[in-house]
Amino acid sequence: MNDQASRPLDRPKARLPRGFQDSAGKMLAIQEQLVGKLAEVYSSYGFEWLTTPSIEFADALGKFLPDLDRPHEGVFSFQDDDGQWLVLRYDLTAPLARYVAEHYDTLPFPYRRFQTGLVFRDEKPGPGRYREFVQFDADTVGTASMAADAEFCMLAADSLEALGLARGDYLVKINNRKVLNGVLELIGVPEGAAGDALRLAVLRAMDKLERLGVGGVAQLLGAGRKDESGDFTKGAGLASKDIDRVLGFLHAGGADRGAVCAALADLVKGSEIGEQGTVELLEIDAGLSAAGFGQDRARIDPAIVRGLAYYTGPVFEAELTFETKGEDGRPIRFGSVGGGGRYDNLVERFLGRKVPATGVSIGVSRLAAALELRGLLSDVAHVGPVVVLVLDRDRLPHYQAMVGELRAGGIRAELYLGQGGMRAQLKYADKRAAPIVVIEGGDERAKGEVTLKDMALGAELSSEIKSRAEWAKGSASQVSIKREELTRRVHEILTRRRP
Amino acid sequence: MNDQASRPLDRPKARLPRGFQDSAGKMLAIQEQLVGKLAEVYSSYGFEWLTTPSIEFADALGKFLPDLDRPHEGVFSFQDDDGQWLVLRYDLTAPLARYVAEHYDTLPFPYRRFQTGLVFRDEKPGPGRYREFVQFDADTVGTASMAADAEFCMLAADSLEALGLARGDYLVKINNRKVLNGVLELIGVPEGAAGDALRLAVLRAMDKLERLGVGGVAQLLGAGRKDESGDFTKGAGLASKDIDRVLGFLHAGGADRGAVCAALADLVKGSEIGEQGTVELLEIDAGLSAAGFGQDRARIDPAIVRGLAYYTGPVFEAELTFETKGEDGRPIRFGSVGGGGRYDNLVERFLGRKVPATGVSIGVSRLAAALELRGLLSDVAHVGPVVVLVLDRDRLPHYQAMVGELRAGGIRAELYLGQGGMRAQLKYADKRAAPIVVIEGGDERAKGEVTLKDMALGAELSSEIKSRAEWAKGSASQVSIKREELTRRVHEILTRRRP
Repeated sequence: MNDQASRPLDRPKARLPRGFQDSAGKMLAIQEQLVGKLAEVYSSYGFEWLTTPSIEFADALGKFLPDLDRPHEGVFSFQDDDGQWLVLRYDLTAPLARYVAEHYDTLPFPYRRFQTGLVFRDEKPGPGRYREFVQFDADTVGTASMAADAEFCMLAADSLEALGLARGDYLVKINNRKVLNGVLELIGVPEGAAGDALRLAVLRAMDKLERLGVGGVAQLLGAGRKDESGDFTKGAGLASKDIDRVLGFLHAGGADRGAVCAALADLVKGSEIGEQGTVELLEIDAGLSAAGFGQDRARIDPAIVRGLAYYTGPVFEAELTFETKGEDGRPIRFGSVGGGGRYDNLVERFLGRKVPATGVSIGVSRLAAALELRGLLSDVAHVGPVVVLVLDRDRLPHYQAMVGELRAGGIRAELYLGQGGMRAQLKYADKRAAPIVVIEGGDERAKGEVTLKDMALGAELSSEIKSRAEWAKGSASQVSIKREELTRRVHEILTRRRP
Repeated sequence: MNDQASRPLDRPKARLPRGFQDSAGKMLAIQEQLVGKLAEVYSSYGFEWLTTPSIEFADALGKFLPDLDRPHEGVFSFQDDDGQWLVLRYDLTAPLARYVAEHYDTLPFPYRRFQTGLVFRDEKPGPGRYREFVQFDADTVGTASMAADAEFCMLAADSLEALGLARGDYLVKINNRKVLNGVLELIGVPEGAAGDALRLAVLRAMDKLERLGVGGVAQLLGAGRKDESGDFTKGAGLASKDIDRVLGFLHAGGADRGAVCAALADLVKGSEIGEQGTVELLEIDAGLSAAGFGQDRARIDPAIVRGLAYYTGPVFEAELTFETKGEDGRPIRFGSVGGGGRYDNLVERFLGRKVPATGVSIGVSRLAAALELRGLLSDVAHVGPVVVLVLDRDRLPHYQAMVGELRAGGIRAELYLGQGGMRAQLKYADKRAAPIVVIEGGDERAKGEVTLKDMALGAELSSEIKSRAEWAKGSASQVSIKREELTRRVHEILTRRRP
């Protein structure tokens, strides 16, 4: 409000609401390429591209916000002129449920689709948390086959490699809610709604393994835990032997997926739902193995919980295993860039019958950040245009012809369109990250020549050459060429400069 | 409401609000490729990609809805939790003005950017008119140079050719509001706000030339016009000699852009603003000619008006010249797929000073419809996946391995994941537009073979072969191959089938 004093009151201030952002340059280019590559991979697996509108009826989308820990977060809503409530979609799964229900009689089943687009959350924004962001989702609707779940694990691994990540830089982790429910059953948590609160408390505790370690999880499974600031979190209240059983589940391991399954089967012996869960995991393992996806790409990990309450079977998560710096500056693993699982209840709201489905959601901006960290996609992501300077304004069409030639030769090129002199034009070219500047003044024209200035080389030289005298004669970054060789010579420099 | 009777009341109905649509299949694929190609061309001209959020402050966007004829149409708006009004953007120009004002001190000028995304209109939907649609915009901000306007004319022509349209299938038409204002000045329409209503009436009349012909326009310029239904539209009330002057302007022609400019200069002699307009048109002509854009690609056409009130100088429109069918079934020219012009006032709202700008907006869905009509982009837009059938459910991992092999060979392929038998699976493959189905039953397996069914050939044959007996033995669309030759043979058939 302060700066309104220096601004006439009728003039609006140019600014964005909190939680929204503009995007340009390198990160935008990486993100666009990323989405394009993902679309390619999902399409190669037979998935069909779908788009649905940003705005839907409130009752058609319902409210299945995907984060258990933020139950009060909301959706943007407003009334249509006939009084019906409309909402901005908060994810891409609820619209899929509406779409499948609406076209149930004509869609091919199992129906595989992918979708990418903006989703909206009317919630308190924070660092890296926006009120509008891009999601990329894929789902298979209408099959209970574990082959569909195995497929998403393969897709995750193939997608990450298609984006340039090396084997070993990522790991797909798989778990099954049914196994977890089996453990809970054996320690006496009631099935269904009666056990919901306790089940949620146990899930939440387990989800904190990486952050709090075994001790912290044990406290949260038991009486509760006081953190460093002195805040107390009430625990799930499990008995000591039950805590041990949950911790045993979390750490069930083995040399390969089959061995982990065997260990889990042992832990849930006697629970029907638990045993069913381990059989499903074995089926996923068989699918992965047949398609050549080994332990180095996809593992079974009982510690994978995934927050969403609606998962009913297998859950999976794609993790990047390389390190980055945490908020405190210490190295941490980059962590999850997406995940999903099986849910059977979403379409049921409309049709009154269960329609089994499984799917995955990818965090586009987080994955883009990882690719940038790894230097992937970014080499093609942002090279500025060649800038043709205008030294003689009366000859604008003549300079225009040069730009046209360069473009016809496949070179990104532009004409300087402003009013500035030589110095301003060079500054402009620098801001635009131009690799080369084309200069033709009267002297050059008289000789039928133009000058090419290699901006990157120029910057290198100017950082080395310290004295003004050296700088003045330092013309190593410039070369005079014949006018008719313009496109060929620009091409040469660009090719030399390519990383 | 009717069908709620057969549905429990607590079950929502799966449907969309009016004016919104889902999109899938061929048109979506064409549209996605279209936007990608446009982005490539604009990038090659040095334009930078920008994205801005869907939601902005109401006062920051203002309300410059681009259609004069729909003054009551609105924007979607709602209040933030602190009481401030937010709106869904209704175009991509108002957010650009906000962005430029916000980053005025750091952007390189002239600033060239392109942007594509959804825009929203809270208005009455109709056939082909939606409340959410995709726009593609490009603008150059911070230069008064006509070279910038010439560039957009070149861009329009180059973009359409990059999309596969032939020279002769399109025409870029150029006009200048200043020339038009010159004509109006000479017939006594007052400059500025005093003449606004009359100017608007004349513009509207001119804009109807294609639809109503010279006679209709003459009536609308004069006392008024009664249409076939008997409805009367009040005219601009011009005197007869002034009507002639306006009609003369509309029909000013010549062998090339230079000749049209000369004819226009003649018509506005004595009006300073009018003469300035013809000089600007000559500058645009010079830029186009220098870059090799002849009369076959870009023409000066005084009949181009463009509805937007905020244009202040050159306006341009890209028209497709081939024919399609009108609402009455009669052939009409496809018409405009985009256009734009110079506007100098949008950023002024924020900064209190004029910032000259010029830009273009492309109607993505309309252009996509034109490409589909011409059969462009669509050949690659939708080939279904190869479907591997599952005849022996116990051998799912084995079938999975086949799919993996096909994909590794660069072939779009999927495993049937449902519960259906052979017949249901073939029907599924048909719905998915699968080019080939891979079949391996017990007999084939015993011989180390698989069967490939060419679905397109099968469809052709079944339309020719009429008797069941012929159909039963008609196996020309199927071929048995060695299991180890799977990928190679599938490749062969796909290559043969390619158009």
